Amino acid sequence: MIIVLKPHATKEHAEELMQRIAALGLRPLYMPGQERVVLGALGDERALESLHLDSDPLVESVKPILAPYKLVGREMHPHDTIVALGNTRVGGGRFTVIAGPCAVETAEQMRATAAAVKTAGAHALRGGAYKPRTSPYSFQGLGQEGLAILREVSRETGLPAVTEVVDVADVELVEEYAAAFQAGARNMQNFRLLQALGRSRKPVILKRGMAAKVDDLLLAAEYILAEGNPNVILCERGITTFETATRNTLDLNAIPVIKQRSHLPILVDPSHGTGLRELVSPMAKAALACGADGLLVEVHHDPPNALSDGRQSLFPEQFAALMRELRPIADAVGKVM
Amino acid sequence: MIIVLKPHATKEHAEELMQRIAALGLRPLYMPGQERVVLGALGDERALESLHLDSDPLVESVKPILAPYKLVGREMHPHDTIVALGNTRVGGGRFTVIAGPCAVETAEQMRATAAAVKTAGAHALRGGAYKPRTSPYSFQGLGQEGLAILREVSRETGLPAVTEVVDVADVELVEEYAAAFQAGARNMQNFRLLQALGRSRKPVILKRGMAAKVDDLLLAAEYILAEGNPNVILCERGITTFETATRNTLDLNAIPVIKQRSHLPILVDPSHGTGLRELVSPMAKAALACGADGLLVEVHHDPPNALSDGRQSLFPEQFAALMRELRPIADAVGKVM
Amino acid sequence: MIIVLKPHATKEHAEELMQRIAALGLRPLYMPGQERVVLGALGDERALESLHLDSDPLVESVKPILAPYKLVGREMHPHDTIVALGNTRVGGGRFTVIAGPCAVETAEQMRATAAAVKTAGAHALRGGAYKPRTSPYSFQGLGQEGLAILREVSRETGLPAVTEVVDVADVELVEEYAAAFQAGARNMQNFRLLQALGRSRKPVILKRGMAAKVDDLLLAAEYILAEGNPNVILCERGITTFETATRNTLDLNAIPVIKQRSHLPILVDPSHGTGLRELVSPMAKAALACGADGLLVEVHHDPPNALSDGRQSLFPEQFAALMRELRPIADAVGKVM
Amino acid sequence: MIIVLKPHATKEHAEELMQRIAALGLRPLYMPGQERVVLGALGDERALESLHLDSDPLVESVKPILAPYKLVGREMHPHDTIVALGNTRVGGGRFTVIAGPCAVETAEQMRATAAAVKTAGAHALRGGAYKPRTSPYSFQGLGQEGLAILREVSRETGLPAVTEVVDVADVELVEEYAAAFQAGARNMQNFRLLQALGRSRKPVILKRGMAAKVDDLLLAAEYILAEGNPNVILCERGITTFETATRNTLDLNAIPVIKQRSHLPILVDPSHGTGLRELVSPMAKAALACGADGLLVEVHHDPPNALSDGRQSLFPEQFAALMRELRPIADAVGKVM
Repeated sequence: MIIVLKPHATKEHAEELMQRIAALGLRPLYMPGQERVVLGALGDERALESLHLDSDPLVESVKPILAPYKLVGREMHPHDTIVALGNTRVGGGRFTVIAGPCAVETAEQMRATAAAVKTAGAHALRGGAYKPRTSPYSFQGLGQEGLAILREVSRETGLPAVTEVVDVADVELVEEYAAAFQAGARNMQNFRLLQALGRSRKPVILKRGMAAKVDDLLLAAEYILAEGNPNVILCERGITTFETATRNTLDLNAIPVIKQRSHLPILVDPSHGTGLRELVSPMAKAALACGADGLLVEVHHDPPNALSDGRQSLFPEQFAALMRELRPIADAVGKVM
Repeated sequence: MIIVLKPHATKEHAEELMQRIAALGLRPLYMPGQERVVLGALGDERALESLHLDSDPLVESVKPILAPYKLVGREMHPHDTIVALGNTRVGGGRFTVIAGPCAVETAEQMRATAAAVKTAGAHALRGGAYKPRTSPYSFQGLGQEGLAILREVSRETGLPAVTEVVDVADVELVEEYAAAFQAGARNMQNFRLLQALGRSRKPVILKRGMAAKVDDLLLAAEYILAEGNPNVILCERGITTFETATRNTLDLNAIPVIKQRSHLPILVDPSHGTGLRELVSPMAKAALACGADGLLVEVHHDPPNALSDGRQSLFPEQFAALMRELRPIADAVGKVM
Repeated sequence: MIIVLKPHATKEHAEELMQRIAALGLRPLYMPGQERVVLGALGDERALESLHLDSDPLVESVKPILAPYKLVGREMHPHDTIVALGNTRVGGGRFTVIAGPCAVETAEQMRATAAAVKTAGAHALRGGAYKPRTSPYSFQGLGQEGLAILREVSRETGLPAVTEVVDVADVELVEEYAAAFQAGARNMQNFRLLQALGRSRKPVILKRGMAAKVDDLLLAAEYILAEGNPNVILCERGITTFETATRNTLDLNAIPVIKQRSHLPILVDPSHGTGLRELVSPMAKAALACGADGLLVEVHHDPPNALSDGRQSLFPEQFAALMRELRPIADAVGKVM
Repeated sequence: MIIVLKPHATKEHAEELMQRIAALGLRPLYMPGQERVVLGALGDERALESLHLDSDPLVESVKPILAPYKLVGREMHPHDTIVALGNTRVGGGRFTVIAGPCAVETAEQMRATAAAVKTAGAHALRGGAYKPRTSPYSFQGLGQEGLAILREVSRETGLPAVTEVVDVADVELVEEYAAAFQAGARNMQNFRLLQALGRSRKPVILKRGMAAKVDDLLLAAEYILAEGNPNVILCERGITTFETATRNTLDLNAIPVIKQRSHLPILVDPSHGTGLRELVSPMAKAALACGADGLLVEVHHDPPNALSDGRQSLFPEQFAALMRELRPIADAVGKVM
């Protein structure tokens, strides 16, 4: 850790800080510069948090050298993590496609959509029973009834089911019904929920928050791993920017960045990432080409009548076409679909 | 509501949409343009959500005319709402200052800080018992023990206490101990929590999310009012932008915008809004000058040893100076402090 | 165009506005709603700009229906434009790779780099003689001497040369030396420069500004076409967002959005778009997969000693590997390289 | 400067880098950490730019300690700069109001508006003869004819005139006609223009670019000072964010940040900063309260008929009211108006 002192900090002040650094078992370093004194602290700088050096009125800034996370980082864990998701797997050279409607609406809708995505080659089924909606007047999901439909259709088709959990109180119930949890973008920093998911052993698909930097996403994942659940799958789903042509700005740069920094698998959700049906297919291909481990994609058997997010849902035949177009790209980049 | 059709939409398609609009009790309007057909729907367009017009493959875009919220909007409720907060009030010509540490650490710390802010003229006391922290390795708050300290110091000083709630399961407990809830920026779209707070009648200070537009904040408040709790106080606390000189970008434009759109009172948190102690005072003055109803400001009796957010906490004497400097500005703009 | 009046606007005011609309040859439409009166204007709404309706104190908002550009839009010009660039072409099923150093430094550097990119299969050569640099203390380019080196190496290798122009006064000179102009992101709204480039007939590679929406980019291109130069090639090079892991956020969503809205070809610059050498290859592949017409990519024969942007420049062997890896993806998506 | 090496960097590589640092006259420092080696370079780190350390494949990141600018920084120049603007001054305890229309349209319009702003107490007159407009189909300004009108009205009223310059070729002409140049947000990184303005001695009002960090603005100002012109006045005018309620997000945090980092005066433009007439007055007061040195504000004698930016222009009586309301706040914060 590098500690830059303010121009008027005295030598005595620097020495006091160095003693506090040494008291924590790190090696302090004194670097008097032309305009400022800079201190270094050699060792595991995460120990230094207890000193609250950035609160010191004579400290101008503190620059950490190490990443703020450990368990999710690639440095101590260089090999890619592969997460089992029901009868399929995510990570390690596969390209896993999880498809289905935004929300579970009826058994018929789920059956029709699941049949279509299975025929087209999807590996798992998605569908929300609890829907976080921006407006209180929008459809909020079927709750436990939706979970039951999802499980039934999952059993019929053999596709493992993924569904969102929005409250600590629902974790046990969702765990009973689904193969994997999804923690949504709006809950990426609902730390109490992350801790509850960390006490399960079922996989968690953790979506990046709209204002979260890559490192914030990795720190959120660290919450889950720190509680004991290693089965985390990250998901890029678009960030908030000034551009209004798309609902969010799908940040594909995050894929290679995360591959450098973390061993966890990373999916891309081109449906929420763009908000526009027409953009799902090109962005899904781009996700595959830049190294993502799979997709989370919205498909509805009848998008114009979907109760939520119909604007971004693929028609079944569009999804089938996408799967056909992805395969030669997967071959080209050496991924198995 | 204005519905723009795609260039290749047929007259038949337009007529079918118009029949669906009419079936909901609105008056449809046909506007054939040079390059596109545009439809209008006159009446309460919120009824149209059930048609999912934006999911229709022949609809290019849908432009609502009315605001998506009702209860929080100024149109049906032109007068400013005043919210009682313990023995003080927020809104309606007052400038209410809520001050205290980021986190409750010890009874001594709370007592020392509360005494200082009371002497300087603060109207209420803040202090967190549950702390949402970006890193799982940071101090997470004292929980119920912290609530007990907060209540005790509140009683001793007569300052009503405000504290954050981060989980539905804690709502009842917090209600027992504090005069008002705070819903943090990371939970602004934790809709389950908002609904639980809507079932209380204690005031809720709802902070704007880092990626939330003003209208997203107002829709989040609508969740609380829709459940029956009218006592909502909004709070601007900085949004996420590209600027790195400050931790967040305090968006003071939101104050007059919210005053136009909503009758709810709005506070400003210059501590989280900037992340820098040196900026708290100038931005607090700016908040007062542009029409805010008060401040939520971090003060610690010993910032260099604060367990969280010390970098942005004022020293007691800085807070006292700020209060002295605010008073003549309050006089100048006609607010009572 | 849809004109929403303020709640207190009178019928008389609406009628006056309708007369002004009619006087311009458009058909006005009166739509009295529950809470507000809405007016429509049918016809070529671009004529309405002269009315300045949004300045009217009784007008709440104005919502245009048509795109603000004409010449660059796909509606009146449905087929893809193909731009000749020296002996190669951009657009129409090709994937054109323009490679070279950020700045022309010496004849030796240009020769070594040009030979390497030609061998690897690049179609054109880039190199800057005028460098817009954030700091006045950074290397500013060789000017005309750089142009001369660039032309010489272009002739030797047969690769057409692309170079940036930063001032109206240099347009003629650059036209003499290079096969195509580049207008940089910082000059995307230097409208005087755009007009000067519009009076040339040489191709212009127009880079998207860091804070420019897709429609702002298209309007900037409209400036060039409106002056008579149809040979515009757009280029996505990253936008400014809150993410700091990359220098900019390469916005690949813009590629399919632009393909819908405009007939102009669009390149991607993964070097400036990410600022990191390690990300160039994955993002270049993603650009190809989502429909871009080519790349603008920085390669230097000796990046650690580059005078500018070495951090994002590929080593020659990295560029050769990238070209090998792009070819099977091009086959998979049906592009010719 | 702090240089963090990649985990696999060898001791030999570190030593080679240290020799290169020493060869430039700085003192290198070796800091072997647990996971990485970190190097320090003590001395004027701006000399290190020639080493291009961030281009080195074994360097992970480079963290500068000093600000990248010198002449505009407060460190070497602790006292506030006061800039003479015709017969008035900007900076040093004054609050200077520059008001007038967005564009010069006619002599009558300028005369009417100038008379109104003078009566209300404005200190200088603004009006654009060259207008950078997003669309090529919008009014582009009167050019030299506009400059002549502006000068005439300036002489008649005694208000010094400020006007925008958009091209190097116009610098001499504008210098002849106006008391001060304005360099617009879209030209903040038109470095050739900045250099030309640096060769003048007339004041330059430099507006912050929409995607420019505070340090980018200061570096742009450094370009002007580095050429010899010390008379630079900065201007905050809104940045690009995701919020759409306002045209831009006026970033008032920048005012106290700039006051810490630089000795140059800083104005606020609440008209462009918000894009909405109703927000100009509250944000102008906030600007004064947080320490700005003045305003650049749009006033038009007849906003509904303004040829540009009428939506954000104040009516004369609104401007007069604003001036009346500013005075007691100026008294409260100790500024002279």
